[in-house]
Order: sequence, then C-alpha cells, then structure tokens
Amino acid sequence: MSGPDFSKIPAVILAAGRGERMRSDFPKVAHEVLGVPLVRWVVRALQEAGFRRLLAVVGHGKEIVQKLLQGDCEFVDQGEPKGTGHAVLAVRPALGDYQGPLIVLNGDVPLVSPATLRALVVGLDKLSADAMVMTACVDPPTGYGRIVRNSQGRIERIVEEADAKMETMINEINGGAYGFRAPAIFEILSRVGPSAKGEYYLTDAVRLILEQGGRVEAARVSNPAEAWGVNARRDLVTVSNYLRWQLLEAHMRNGVTIVDPSSVYIEDGVSIGRDTIVYPYTVLQRGVTIGARCKVGPFARLRGNTTLADETEVGNFVEIKSSRLGRRSRAKHLTYLGDATLGEGVNIGAGTITANYDGHSKNPTMIEDEVQTGCHTVLIAPVRLGRGAKTGAGSVVLRGRDVPPGELVVGVPARAVRSKKAAKK
Amino acid sequence: MSGPDFSKIPAVILAAGRGERMRSDFPKVAHEVLGVPLVRWVVRALQEAGFRRLLAVVGHGKEIVQKLLQGDCEFVDQGEPKGTGHAVLAVRPALGDYQGPLIVLNGDVPLVSPATLRALVVGLDKLSADAMVMTACVDPPTGYGRIVRNSQGRIERIVEEADAKMETMINEINGGAYGFRAPAIFEILSRVGPSAKGEYYLTDAVRLILEQGGRVEAARVSNPAEAWGVNARRDLVTVSNYLRWQLLEAHMRNGVTIVDPSSVYIEDGVSIGRDTIVYPYTVLQRGVTIGARCKVGPFARLRGNTTLADETEVGNFVEIKSSRLGRRSRAKHLTYLGDATLGEGVNIGAGTITANYDGHSKNPTMIEDEVQTGCHTVLIAPVRLGRGAKTGAGSVVLRGRDVPPGELVVGVPARAVRSKKAAKK
Amino acid sequence: MSGPDFSKIPAVILAAGRGERMRSDFPKVAHEVLGVPLVRWVVRALQEAGFRRLLAVVGHGKEIVQKLLQGDCEFVDQGEPKGTGHAVLAVRPALGDYQGPLIVLNGDVPLVSPATLRALVVGLDKLSADAMVMTACVDPPTGYGRIVRNSQGRIERIVEEADAKMETMINEINGGAYGFRAPAIFEILSRVGPSAKGEYYLTDAVRLILEQGGRVEAARVSNPAEAWGVNARRDLVTVSNYLRWQLLEAHMRNGVTIVDPSSVYIEDGVSIGRDTIVYPYTVLQRGVTIGARCKVGPFARLRGNTTLADETEVGNFVEIKSSRLGRRSRAKHLTYLGDATLGEGVNIGAGTITANYDGHSKNPTMIEDEVQTGCHTVLIAPVRLGRGAKTGAGSVVLRGRDVPPGELVVGVPARAVRSKKAAKK
Repeated sequence: MSGPDFSKIPAVILAAGRGERMRSDFPKVAHEVLGVPLVRWVVRALQEAGFRRLLAVVGHGKEIVQKLLQGDCEFVDQGEPKGTGHAVLAVRPALGDYQGPLIVLNGDVPLVSPATLRALVVGLDKLSADAMVMTACVDPPTGYGRIVRNSQGRIERIVEEADAKMETMINEINGGAYGFRAPAIFEILSRVGPSAKGEYYLTDAVRLILEQGGRVEAARVSNPAEAWGVNARRDLVTVSNYLRWQLLEAHMRNGVTIVDPSSVYIEDGVSIGRDTIVYPYTVLQRGVTIGARCKVGPFARLRGNTTLADETEVGNFVEIKSSRLGRRSRAKHLTYLGDATLGEGVNIGAGTITANYDGHSKNPTMIEDEVQTGCHTVLIAPVRLGRGAKTGAGSVVLRGRDVPPGELVVGVPARAVRSKKAAKK
Repeated sequence: MSGPDFSKIPAVILAAGRGERMRSDFPKVAHEVLGVPLVRWVVRALQEAGFRRLLAVVGHGKEIVQKLLQGDCEFVDQGEPKGTGHAVLAVRPALGDYQGPLIVLNGDVPLVSPATLRALVVGLDKLSADAMVMTACVDPPTGYGRIVRNSQGRIERIVEEADAKMETMINEINGGAYGFRAPAIFEILSRVGPSAKGEYYLTDAVRLILEQGGRVEAARVSNPAEAWGVNARRDLVTVSNYLRWQLLEAHMRNGVTIVDPSSVYIEDGVSIGRDTIVYPYTVLQRGVTIGARCKVGPFARLRGNTTLADETEVGNFVEIKSSRLGRRSRAKHLTYLGDATLGEGVNIGAGTITANYDGHSKNPTMIEDEVQTGCHTVLIAPVRLGRGAKTGAGSVVLRGRDVPPGELVVGVPARAVRSKKAAKK
Repeated sequence: MSGPDFSKIPAVILAAGRGERMRSDFPKVAHEVLGVPLVRWVVRALQEAGFRRLLAVVGHGKEIVQKLLQGDCEFVDQGEPKGTGHAVLAVRPALGDYQGPLIVLNGDVPLVSPATLRALVVGLDKLSADAMVMTACVDPPTGYGRIVRNSQGRIERIVEEADAKMETMINEINGGAYGFRAPAIFEILSRVGPSAKGEYYLTDAVRLILEQGGRVEAARVSNPAEAWGVNARRDLVTVSNYLRWQLLEAHMRNGVTIVDPSSVYIEDGVSIGRDTIVYPYTVLQRGVTIGARCKVGPFARLRGNTTLADETEVGNFVEIKSSRLGRRSRAKHLTYLGDATLGEGVNIGAGTITANYDGHSKNPTMIEDEVQTGCHTVLIAPVRLGRGAKTGAGSVVLRGRDVPPGELVVGVPARAVRSKKAAKK
C-alpha cells in the first residue's frame, strides 16, 4: 500500500510568537535544548518524517528565527501578530492554488515524533477527517487546551485553559499539531472572528469545522512528552532532562561506562566509543566524537568539532575545542586546546595552553606524534611541533617558530637547547 | 484595624544548644544553609515580620553565635544549659517589668515565615489564648514532639518523641515557635520541675497552662517546611535543597536560562539578569550580581562581592572574587581574578592570574577598557593596565609597574616592547 | 553454640562470564563500582564473612580477572564456557575429596552481605537442607530467575526469565548465591543435561535435588539490594548510587558537612574528619584521608594516596595525587600537586604545578613548613623547597635545584634573589 508523498505536503511551523512567559528578548523558539534551538528540533522531526516543504511563520525576532532555519524553510512574515489562526492564514499566498493535506504545528513542541507528524496526514484520509489534532493525556494538564469529547467519544470542541471551567478536569490536551485540508482550512479561517483580545485562534477553526458537521479526529500519542509545549524556562529544563536521559541510556546500552549519569552534561550529537569511561562533571557538546577505550573527565569540557581517537585520555580542568587528538594521546591537567591537531602518543603537560586567538582570528596548532609539552607551556598559533619534539616547563613557543622533530625548546620565548637539561612533567 | 506594634514585642531566639547529633565542635545554629548560618535565617524572618527586639539565649559556643548576631540581638547567657524552659526563664531579667506578648523560637528552624511569626502574637488576642504554638503536619513526624488534641480538637498536651507511645502515630508536630504572655509565662516556668535528665522543658510550661485551665492554640502552618528543625547534617541538606529550588525557580521565572538546575549551586543573595545563561557546574555565592545577556560557566565559580556587567562571558575553570567586570568583558579559560576591576571589552587570556595576595593583605588590580592579556599572564597587585594595553603570553607584570594605555609588555618580568611581535591568545 | 569454621569452607566465585549486555571487551566482573571492580566487592563480603578459601572460576578475560584477584583466590579455568553448572563442576578437581558445605555465588552480585553468605552455610544444617538459595523480593523482578513455591510455601523450582510464563508475576527472585553440600552437588551436576543452547545450568541442579526429594531452602534477604545482579552498564549506576548514598549518609552522621551530597562524587575508602566541609563538584577517590576542620572544593579532585592534615584548604580547580598536606596548608586555585609532601602552613599560589613526571617515572617534591609559592610556579621534581622559602610568580624551579630555607627564587629557570622585590600571590 503506497502512502502519501510527504515531500510534497506543506508543513507550517508557527514560529512568530514572543513567548511572554519566557521573559526574554529573544524569540521563544530560539531557546535551546541540549544545544539545539527548539524550532530546530521541530524541523528535524519534520525532515525525518519526510516533509520537505517547510513554511515557517515568523514575526517576533524574525531575523533570529530566519537565521536558525535558513536553507530548510520558506518564510512567511505574519506582520502584526494576531493569533495562530491569523498566522496560518498568512501562509495562503505562499501555497498558491495548492490542494491537498497540510500540517500545522507549533514551533515549541520539540519532542513530537516523525510518526505522529505522518499520522496527522494519513489520518485525514484513513479516518475521513476534515482535521486531525495531536492529543495526549498529560498529568497535570495545566496550561494546555483541553479536548472535550461527546458521549460517543468524538471530539466536540477544544477549550483553552483560560476559558475552561469543569473542563480543567480533563487531562486529554491539545498538543499543538494539526492536519488540515487545503484550501478548505483557509476558507474556514477566513470566517473565524477575533477573540476578546483581538486574536484569531486556530482552535476556533476546529470549532467551526465541528459546527458545520465536519469531522475532527485525534492523533493521540501514547508518550505524553511528544505534546509537551515550552512556555517558560522551566519547561526547557523538563524537555532537556527527558532527552538527556534518553541519550545517556543509549550511550550506556552501546557500551559506554558513564560513572554517574546524573553528573554529566552530554548534548545531542555526541558519539562515544565502546569501553570509554566518562567520569563525573564532564560536559560534552554537540559535534564531539570520542573513540573506544578513552577516559574523559572528571571536570573535562569537550566543545564542538572535537575528535578523540581511541585510547586517548582527557583529564581534569581541561577544555578542548575544534581539535583532534590522535590515538593514545593525553591531556590530563589544567589545559586548553583549541584548533589543535595532535598526532598519536602525545603527552600534553599540565597547564599547557594553545593561544589560538590573536585578537582577530583563530589559528591552528599542529602537534605531531610523540610530542611532550612541559608544564605551563604556551603555544602561540599558528605553530607546529615536529614529531617527538619537547618543550620545557614555562616555555612560550612563538607563532611561526616551528619546533623541528626531536628538538627540545625552553624559555620565554622558547629556544632550542642541545643538552636535555630542562625538565618536563 | 490596627495590629500590634511588632517592633516593641520581644522575640526570644533559643541559640544555646550544642546540637549533639551534628557531631560538631561548633554550635548548631552556626552551621550554614546556602551560605547563611541557621540562626541568621531565623533573624531574617523575625526582622521581615517587623520584630526589632531580638534576644538570643546563648551558651554552647557563645562567642561564635554572638559574632554571628552582633548588632541584631541582645544576648542572654544561659550559663549551665538546663533545657529550653530554663533558657526562656533566663531572659526575664533582661525584660524587666515588660508586660505583653512575646515570642520564643528555636534558632534551628530556618524556614519559618514572617507571617507565622506574626500569627504567634496576633493569635494570643484573637483566640484569647494563653499560649500559641506553631504546629505542622509533617510526614514522617519522626523526631518531633507531637500535638495531642482532645475530642473537641483542642490542644491537650505536647508529647516529646522520647515519651511518645501511641502518640507516635500523630503527625501534627510542635514546630518549636511559641507566643506567650509576659510576665505570666515566667511565673509558670518558675513552677516547672526538672525532667529525669535534670532539664526544664518549655513544653512543660505548655502543659502547666493547660492543667490550670489555660488555653493553648495552634498556629498551624500549611507548608510543613516552616516547621523543619535542623538536628543533624542531613537536615541541613534537606533545608538547603528546598530553598535552593525555590531560588532556582525564581531565577527562571525572571528570565534566566539555567541549563541544568540540578547541576548548579546558587546561594541565597545572588542577582541574575534577563537572558543570561548559566551553564552546568557553576557555583554562584552570596553577593554576586550578574547582568543581562551574560554567559556563565560551565565550571565557573563566582564568589562574594562580584559584579558582571551586561554581556560579559565567564567560562570554564574560572574563579572570580571581589571583582567587577565591565560590559562585554570576557574571562573564559583557567583564570583567577581577585580584587580586580575590569573595564569594558576586556579579553582575559587563558591562564591569567591576578596575584592579589602578597602574603599579608589583598591588593587591587585595575584593568581598563579593551585590555587584552596573553595566556598565562600573572598580574601582581597592586597594578594597573591602561586602556588597550596588552600583555604577552607568560608575562609577569610586577606590582606597581603600571602598563600605560596601548602598550604591549612581555616577559618575566614584563617589559614594554615597541614591535608587536609577541602574540597573545 | 559454636558455629562452622568459615575459613575452611570453600566459596566458589563465578567470574568467567562475558556479560554480553555490557557491550564490553572487558570481562563483566572487572567493571568498577565506586572505584572497586565488581568481583572485588564480592571478595570483600566473603572475607568479612570469614571465608578464606576462595575459588574463582575464570574464563572470558581471565588474565584481567586473575590480576584483580591475585593473592586472594585460587583460580579454576573453565575452558570453554558452558554455563554455571559446568563452571561449578570445573571446581571439583581443586577440592579433591573435600566433604562438607560449600557456597557458590555469581561474581556480579556486589551488594551481598557477609551475614547472608554465612546464612547459606548455616542454613544447610539448621534447616536440614540439601541446598540453600539466596532469594529476594524485588520490584520489578524483570531479568531474574523466579522462585516458585508450592502451596505449603516450599521452594518447588527456579524458573529462568526466558522460560517464565505466568511465573513472571512472581517477585521473589534467585539472587545467584547458593549453599551446597560436597561432594553431593558434584554428583548431581554431573547428571545435569545441556540446555537447548548447550549450556549446563546450576539451577538445573537445584531442580534435580528437588526432583529426588531433596530439600531446598531460601536465605531470603530483607534488603533486595543484596540480590541485585549487574548485567548492563545501567546496573553499575544503580549499584553505585545505592552505595554512594550509604557512604554519604555515614560521612554526614560522622560530622562532615557535605554541602550538596548529590553534587559530590566520593568513592569507597575515603576518610573525612569532623567539621570538615566538602563543597559541591568535588571528587574524592579511594585512598584519600582528610582531617578535621578542612575545606575541600568546590571543583577539587583528590586522588588516591592523598592525606590532608587538619585545617587544610583545597580549593577550586585543584588536583592532588599521592601527596600529603600538613596542617593549615592551602592550595586554593588552579593547581596540580602530585607526589608532593607539604609541611605545615604552606601556601600554594594559584597555578602552581608539580612536574612530577619526567616522561619515564614519577618523582617526589618536598615542600617544607611555611613555604609560599608564587602564581604559576612550576616545581620540577625531584626538588625540595626549604622551610619558609618563596618562589616568584612564573618561576620554574629545576629538578635538583633545591631552594634553601627562607630563600626567594624567581625566573625561568628560578635563581635566588637577595632583595625581596618579586611579589607572590
């Protein structure tokens, strides 16, 4: 049985809101969870589901949001923000005379799954529905619109929290993701009147559909997290904790020892090899790749674009950024490595710092196999330490003063010595 | 309706106890929660409630306790410690012929609210009571005295945990805060006999009041935390966690992103501006003020008397103490700043240290706008770096050798260079 | 009443398994909990119970396991791994004509108590049993073999999880520790047939004993943690959390202030004195001894073989390994001390590093009473700083260039100066 071609079906992302309760000068959907902005989580789920035509309705902080979504979305400027119904209507011109299903979802629902997004389309035909609504049973349902069903169990209306009386007891909530039919939805939306606050609500379109005898069906998710919406900073934490533990469990199942999972902060987009041990108080950011049988931490921070080959060791009070450490290399104490490429078997002495930033741009440091740096060495980039080179304690290797293979340099600035009298840790 | 003038009503703080279960050489009430000694939390609640005449009964470790309370309390030395009843009786001489209400509370009840403290006074008249007792329903009630009520629901007696039999099932407990009438309470206390251990208990006064037909009423708190008493180190943690999460929630509501609230340690008395991001493994101590749109952490520690202006960045393995960072200044890696004043747009290189301590006293470091320090710079205070000055990697700027604006200094000790050949991170 | 002589009773540790679900190249029992390999926890419990004749059945990764147990166990190589029954049978030759009780336990049950291990022996006689099985009621029982009892409450059989149908509802589980009688158990095991997978199960011996009218009794533990088996990395965390909190509670009861117990990582085998304060984000590893009234952390890591005398202070971003700090000594900022011995009243300046490793071996640093090191000092071991000596900021003291008492040295390399003009933090 062939399903719909999701790549042709428009997906509208509502990303224009201010998010009053965030108390922020930035748009709500730009706030991050595990290093990824909220709206990027939504885009990822849409792309995994096969949607390719993404339309983001922007407004508040639109420059920021557009920058986050550039290349993945078309943008529709809502102009004056007048509610979710108004936002969807603003998309109409961009769709021209498109006829067929479309989905609409809030940009602040980061945990929605690709399967649910597909179900919003598939359900329209399968259930002969005019609209599909993602719903979930959450506990407590406070803050969400409630799904009111009639005695036959059919959806009768959606009641906003603010308007709810007895309905506050209902725990099936509106998850903020919908399937509609175009152009019917636009015609309905054009008939929606303003609320007391002068806003046009998408849920009023659902009401109109029901009033005119249309059919609204639920795509009810079994995992309530899919429907979690982010409205306050506290909600960012709830979502983050949920995802973080899922990732931690996955790393452990893959054969990583995480000594105390509640004491590490590992973002999304981190790969860790088998039998690697991650010690407490370790931060691993997006874009970090760690090999097998490594030891990382405690008190280590690996930032983006960093790769550790197998059997490397990164110890305490060490920060590494945009660097590559070769097999069996070690940086164990009080070190900063940035834009550095290390070969195999390198030993970075305590207090070594790569001065990668010259006040204008970042420069690379090349450290070849078996190099040993002395304690408190500063390497001013761009610079290269040849294979087996050594630096004395407290030496400052100036930019461009490459150290030939096997040579020992000492001093401020560092100069070559013949006799190996300067010691290193 | 005019209420009582709390500023005239004596409040007696019982702060003489050893706190056997703390296993400490220090008095119990001196142990800290979020950087504030237990007894200071009690004093703060009293002051917020409007009480101005505070009498602290001291005994064990009295020098320490008096130092903590100096300026806020009168002190009454209990001499030989003979129980809470004996302690209150010791206050009588200090009150002279005072007639009117007074309150008594344990110095180890840090979460008691100002409203409850006022209720202990107001209730005396309003309920025609001879004594008021703060009570709470806690689960489990283990360790606390229990409130026994008769079939009419009136307080009948207070049973100590040690004497409780069936009463251990009761979960309404004595919260250790009372309202009494003077001089009546002193006359009653003078009739209280010693316990088997030779101590005179305040709860026996309550018993005597009831026996002679007096009336004892409860100020029952709805938040059981108000009645939590600290008897062991474990209790310090319970109280601390409660307060810490309240403060964290408040920061988040105010528009601060706390990436992982369970992985930061923020004391009481910290202010953080809107859209500032606090990364994991960050310690913010009392007296820290952070502006808006800053980034702090991971692995940062800001100690007392530190101010970060808007848009500053403090990164990993950085400690800052008694310092001020101007707008857009940055200290991102492996740095110690103490007693330093930084202008705007300063860039502190990795491994920079202010040597603020000369073995005798602390000295200031002045760093003007747009200064850049090279990696592993040591600044020996007192010293000043003029606007736009730079230091080379590994340089040691000696005390008093101020660097003029725009100048570059390098070496150990640092000297001015004309050519800008020494590089910095 | 005289009990059995446990020192003569063989205890068989099953330590040959691969532990497929660990996804590891290392044998399961070698994985660590709080710094101690799983199988060492089992050995410790056996030794505390009085057992002295320990036989470890090894197989997968046997070199690693033997190294962990060397000196405490005899080893029996299982050869091709063919199940737990096969493993126990492999022990027979080592026992010769031994007649009497023996116990068998999995090497992955780290929390089993000495009392339970003794009960497996004592119960054989006391209950006239042919076999004893450690059981526990755990919730959920998923993953464990279930204990099926008949209507009289007697053990009827043990059903493996994989074979369980209705039995999955039973929450009394097989804890993987047994008491048997030799040589009877070996005769029974020799009659056990292979499973569908070709393995010989010890639980089939239990079945045979029951079938031939023998008696199997339970040593049911009241603390289910005793029966927890480790099968996946996640289980290491469960066990570790359990033990860690037990240790934390014990430290607090002993009079240590642990400011936030959920934010410190303290291994087994750490001693901390009264009124010492441990700040958040502190790692204390096995073999650390801390005196009274010390302050440790935040962001401190003390590694093995380290002793802090009373009233020492170890601050942030400080790592100490195999060192001893005398009374009132302080190392408060960005420091690495390895293989160092400090006298009393020493002040280690921020950024001080002992270069204890010369690329081949570790060398000692001696720092006598009242020494003060300047910021960013490097001490290249072996070296000695005499009583009251001082180093200037950024100085590098070369190996063997001992600093006489009271002398000040500065520079790279450090040389003595007469005038005390170089400043220190």
